[in-house]
Amino acid sequence: MTAIVQKYGGSSLASVEKIKSVAKRVINEKEKGNDVVVVVSAMGKTTDYLVNLSKEISHNTNKRDMDVLLSTGEQISIALLSMAINDLGYDAISFTGFQAGIKTDGVHTKNKIVDIEIEKIKEYLKEGKIVVVAGFQGINNKGDITTLGRGGSDTTAVAIAAKLGCECNIYTDVDGIYSVDPRVYFRAKKLKNISYQEMIAMSSLGAGVMETRAVEIGYKYNVPIYVASSSEYITGTYIKEYEKEMEEQVIKGIAIDDNIYMITIGKVLLNSNNIARIIERLGEENVNIDMISQSSPQNGYVNLSFTVCKDDLNSVCKVIDEIKLEIEEMIIDIKSNLSKVSVVGLGMMNQSDMIGKMFRVLSNNNIEFKQFTTSEISVSYTLDDKDKEVAVAALAREFNL
Amino acid sequence: MTAIVQKYGGSSLASVEKIKSVAKRVINEKEKGNDVVVVVSAMGKTTDYLVNLSKEISHNTNKRDMDVLLSTGEQISIALLSMAINDLGYDAISFTGFQAGIKTDGVHTKNKIVDIEIEKIKEYLKEGKIVVVAGFQGINNKGDITTLGRGGSDTTAVAIAAKLGCECNIYTDVDGIYSVDPRVYFRAKKLKNISYQEMIAMSSLGAGVMETRAVEIGYKYNVPIYVASSSEYITGTYIKEYEKEMEEQVIKGIAIDDNIYMITIGKVLLNSNNIARIIERLGEENVNIDMISQSSPQNGYVNLSFTVCKDDLNSVCKVIDEIKLEIEEMIIDIKSNLSKVSVVGLGMMNQSDMIGKMFRVLSNNNIEFKQFTTSEISVSYTLDDKDKEVAVAALAREFNL
Repeated sequence: MTAIVQKYGGSSLASVEKIKSVAKRVINEKEKGNDVVVVVSAMGKTTDYLVNLSKEISHNTNKRDMDVLLSTGEQISIALLSMAINDLGYDAISFTGFQAGIKTDGVHTKNKIVDIEIEKIKEYLKEGKIVVVAGFQGINNKGDITTLGRGGSDTTAVAIAAKLGCECNIYTDVDGIYSVDPRVYFRAKKLKNISYQEMIAMSSLGAGVMETRAVEIGYKYNVPIYVASSSEYITGTYIKEYEKEMEEQVIKGIAIDDNIYMITIGKVLLNSNNIARIIERLGEENVNIDMISQSSPQNGYVNLSFTVCKDDLNSVCKVIDEIKLEIEEMIIDIKSNLSKVSVVGLGMMNQSDMIGKMFRVLSNNNIEFKQFTTSEISVSYTLDDKDKEVAVAALAREFNL
Repeated sequence: MTAIVQKYGGSSLASVEKIKSVAKRVINEKEKGNDVVVVVSAMGKTTDYLVNLSKEISHNTNKRDMDVLLSTGEQISIALLSMAINDLGYDAISFTGFQAGIKTDGVHTKNKIVDIEIEKIKEYLKEGKIVVVAGFQGINNKGDITTLGRGGSDTTAVAIAAKLGCECNIYTDVDGIYSVDPRVYFRAKKLKNISYQEMIAMSSLGAGVMETRAVEIGYKYNVPIYVASSSEYITGTYIKEYEKEMEEQVIKGIAIDDNIYMITIGKVLLNSNNIARIIERLGEENVNIDMISQSSPQNGYVNLSFTVCKDDLNSVCKVIDEIKLEIEEMIIDIKSNLSKVSVVGLGMMNQSDMIGKMFRVLSNNNIEFKQFTTSEISVSYTLDDKDKEVAVAALAREFNL
């Protein structure tokens, strides 16, 4: 028998009706003759509800307690989905993270899976049972309940598939991976396939369908990940090993990241200690610096620019206020309403004309960009929000996305 | 250091404000210099909410799933209470049933505690931590999450106190044990002490404050149980070993059980097989037969009367319909709107005048009773609901309750 891991997100389980409909989809897979493991998230807005409850208790929540609290969300889901499957005459068994042997390590609310004692799941699959597992949670070596943070349920699903050596199907509220977010560019095409590396780039550059970490596990253990709609039976997208095709399309997609802030620190004395001090302090405050650039020195001064996401803005301001006390002449400029538009494609760097084409497209459309960076498989531009749609549409047309 | 177990029920934890106020009470106990273990139920109506969710999924719920579902209620409570205690600068740690090492056995939704691996709790107490434990739940030897059924959180609390060899304080929405339910007899006195045996009789005869099983564990392991208000600091009631007092009050209290139905099966041929058959079938349907009596035979026929609680009425009717097909001449009478009033007191049976006094009191007040039974420490009457208050008040006055 072939095993298969299915994962359903919170919006696919938001009501009793939706849970019943997921139960039917699970049974459908079982009826095909497969051994089925189902990984579920918390129902709809359950996690938000629990987070709000905790905020009413304390603004400085103990993180171990937070994990105990949040993990109840998926536990409710596994119980209800298992009930629904059992009610339809099939044999299901539900497991929380600790029962499924999902061992984690790290800090509370942001744990990482270190291993899964997969024998228990295998044993129940052998008995013909449908195994329903709580995503997003595990247990650490002290016996504490832990959670995995953002993208946790996807991570659980792909990790179980890696252990079983089988495919992982992620069912969600979008019906696949698109070359461009269809809300921004409605002509965007759904991809049949995307390589792990391209998907990791797309995700880390802002495409919201899957968190990077789950794709990374898929990449590492070569787990085919299929992303498709949880409500309709239409073809989705496979994330898998890169396969060279005959007529290769170098550019695979465009990732868009909104809510970007660009911080420019002007008149910094060109003194490696000063710049190191700023970057160091930002790191200490856990600020994720994204695109960073430095102007060429003028009269011994440089301008330092970097982008951060909205969540980190308060920490950035805190650090700047501190540093200002030390370096009085600094000039600070914060630009909001920016987006990052990234063009992603494996092997792009081997085609030297690609970047030229992009600059031409932006220029022809009178789009100014604030910053520009490249990696092996992507080119990113920071630009004004208002220019985003025009830029994306023009790039998508140029590269036939 | 002396350890103490506190238990708070769902209504004492029904809101964030109430949880914060419980946190302060817990800290207050810790500040007295005690090692504190707190056992909590699910917040307010959480269990009802979860039960209703499950009913929407299935009318024939898988009981293992039900336990997975219901146990989230207490898990939410331990997380929030621990957060609240930590937020006030004290060191709390939360444990679910499995984390606290509460081993159970039996059928899902109705498990019994077989052992508690108490070392873990002791270890954290030694570190000075306040240990917050989810009541009502445990884990069986297969690693399944289990729940303990009615009165489960009280049972968890008393069982932990038994293992720690310490006192157990049950904080609830009543402020102690009364000789009579104050809603029926407003002059009822709060008892300073009641013996385990008397409390077990009161509980099993209908007094709702504590479930019998928790008191039974207290009795078995000699755990002093103190029942008091969770919202006010006023003296409650100790349930403990019977102590002979100088001026002994033989009658301790009156228990009242509403919603009693009396079934009379008339014209049963006096044939032990017939009666055995009826009782046997009721047992198979898990009907709890309470007071049972049989008239003296007339012309070879007897009448069989017994009382059942409302929950069992459907099962009783089912059995009667079956039996009627076999024994056609049977006459069935079901009386509703009945109450059971029980007078409870240790050593009552040694005072032969007690029962006589009760009959005199009822007779003086023109109260008819349908049935009458006695045990070593109680005398129970089935009577019309409408007579209940007069009977209780008369008996309470007579015995100075």
